[in-house]
Amino acid sequence: MERISISEAAFQLTLRDFKEAASRISNDIIETPLLPFEFPDRKLMLKAECLQELGSFKIRAGANAIESANEEDLLNGVITASAGNFGQGVAKAAKNRGLPVHVIVPETAAKVKVEALLNLGAKVTAVPFSDWWAVMTTRSTGLNGFFIHPVAELEVIIGNGGIGLEISSQCPDVDVIVVPFGGGGMISGIALAMKALGKKPHIIACEIETSTPLKSAKSKGKPINVTRGESWIDGIGSTSVLPEMWPLLDELVDDVIVVSHLEAEEALRSLSSKAHLVSEGAGAVALAAAMKPQFSGKNIVAVISGGNIDPKTYGEILNNSHS
Amino acid sequence: MERISISEAAFQLTLRDFKEAASRISNDIIETPLLPFEFPDRKLMLKAECLQELGSFKIRAGANAIESANEEDLLNGVITASAGNFGQGVAKAAKNRGLPVHVIVPETAAKVKVEALLNLGAKVTAVPFSDWWAVMTTRSTGLNGFFIHPVAELEVIIGNGGIGLEISSQCPDVDVIVVPFGGGGMISGIALAMKALGKKPHIIACEIETSTPLKSAKSKGKPINVTRGESWIDGIGSTSVLPEMWPLLDELVDDVIVVSHLEAEEALRSLSSKAHLVSEGAGAVALAAAMKPQFSGKNIVAVISGGNIDPKTYGEILNNSHS
Repeated sequence: MERISISEAAFQLTLRDFKEAASRISNDIIETPLLPFEFPDRKLMLKAECLQELGSFKIRAGANAIESANEEDLLNGVITASAGNFGQGVAKAAKNRGLPVHVIVPETAAKVKVEALLNLGAKVTAVPFSDWWAVMTTRSTGLNGFFIHPVAELEVIIGNGGIGLEISSQCPDVDVIVVPFGGGGMISGIALAMKALGKKPHIIACEIETSTPLKSAKSKGKPINVTRGESWIDGIGSTSVLPEMWPLLDELVDDVIVVSHLEAEEALRSLSSKAHLVSEGAGAVALAAAMKPQFSGKNIVAVISGGNIDPKTYGEILNNSHS
Repeated sequence: MERISISEAAFQLTLRDFKEAASRISNDIIETPLLPFEFPDRKLMLKAECLQELGSFKIRAGANAIESANEEDLLNGVITASAGNFGQGVAKAAKNRGLPVHVIVPETAAKVKVEALLNLGAKVTAVPFSDWWAVMTTRSTGLNGFFIHPVAELEVIIGNGGIGLEISSQCPDVDVIVVPFGGGGMISGIALAMKALGKKPHIIACEIETSTPLKSAKSKGKPINVTRGESWIDGIGSTSVLPEMWPLLDELVDDVIVVSHLEAEEALRSLSSKAHLVSEGAGAVALAAAMKPQFSGKNIVAVISGGNIDPKTYGEILNNSHS
């Protein structure tokens, strides 16, 4: 059976789809606060997704993907292939439901991430990177269980849409929403939820200077491969936009703002000293973008997507001793 | 006219007093989230007051004190005598209402705190410490304006009671609430609001090992002078319980837990890495107390009172390099 493309399916989503998903996962997540952030010439607000349990918005997608499966499919538990925030989100959502979960990770995955998965009760199998990538592209694991893809999954987009619903109810007159761009699941979900609500805020993606796949795709009119420079910021910055996500991003994202490391580090310090939030790099990139002069006078929301940052790196940036 | 004592007045407060205050200041504050904090043997939750604008619960008291004055009294603006979070709370609440505010600070006040007050539009006058202390004890400034005392003020207690109302609605079956003890305004407000709601959670104060005025008063049955050792933790830890607050604390506080610096520093790191909150020392002391074995099996809330911590100290503690 041929699968309808993610983009085609996503464009057909209705407000009811987003609302039902939000209700399905209401026990897994908190409605994160929209915090005012003092800034001279605009009403700037932070959507503090770093306050979700496990410190990331990804619990929304993980929980929704499990909730959307039928019971029979879940008899053998859940399988995913992410060592990061998404894998943790799926593992936590599975744990909340008493379901076994099996996570395939590349052998290169950081030990601390594998340990976090084990602490959540997941079975973890490490495979060579090429085998892991094959799982990502074929969705085939050879294992019994319900497979959830970390990015190219309609239920991921729908789950993330809840962030849009919450922003709209917390700030009905929002003009601009700035979202870190990783794979596109979050920005698509937020934009589609806003559309379903009949609202038209500007949807702005942000990227870090060392890796700008979306900015490049936007200027070329199609996904292209870009280099990926070194950065302490993870979770955003891949080498290309996934082709199956491109139609959504082409249509829904109004602009892309590229942020420098200096700007991101300054924003990270501001999040700590002024907002008292511990953010990961991607969230700091969103705040840095939202402070740009072009948004003067606007009601603007920066999505602080997560708070999982290496403590050593974090301490160094706070102390201005990071190089 | 003789003033009725704070304690006498406070014991007469009703649920209506607390609810009206909460409603009066609803535009000054956010309802802070009650965040789950994973811990093996209990349901531990964080009342994240560090997310208030300016990073402290004190905006509640400052705003309520101003709101409770009559218009005539406010014609010449507002005066207070705190260089810290309370002074900022009053200054911000006054700014929100377009009222002039004059803050008397001791000459020893940290420059960064004075600058924060100036940024909020306050007029700041620095006086010798003995003159400043005279203002605190006599409530007399020789200036025209409505004076608000940072601790011994009924409206401060009522404003802080809102924290109790919120906890009760966010977790109706709370068993224990742990509150940092500074002057007693916060713990009294929370305890009295709970009482007014007809609820009886255990009310636990926490102190840092270098200065334990409440623990000492509780064991002697009256306020006594204690030494104040050096600590990076401020906002809690004075040399004595204020006599006018003692009847409240004697009656309302069920137990006092003393926390070591090692425990507080470990809790500060957990707040950063697990809850993604930047807390000041007092909040970390509350979490450390709430993790003690005696609270096994309980639904327990730690009040994370504020997030204003020196960035250098913070970075050092995160990096385990603080001495």
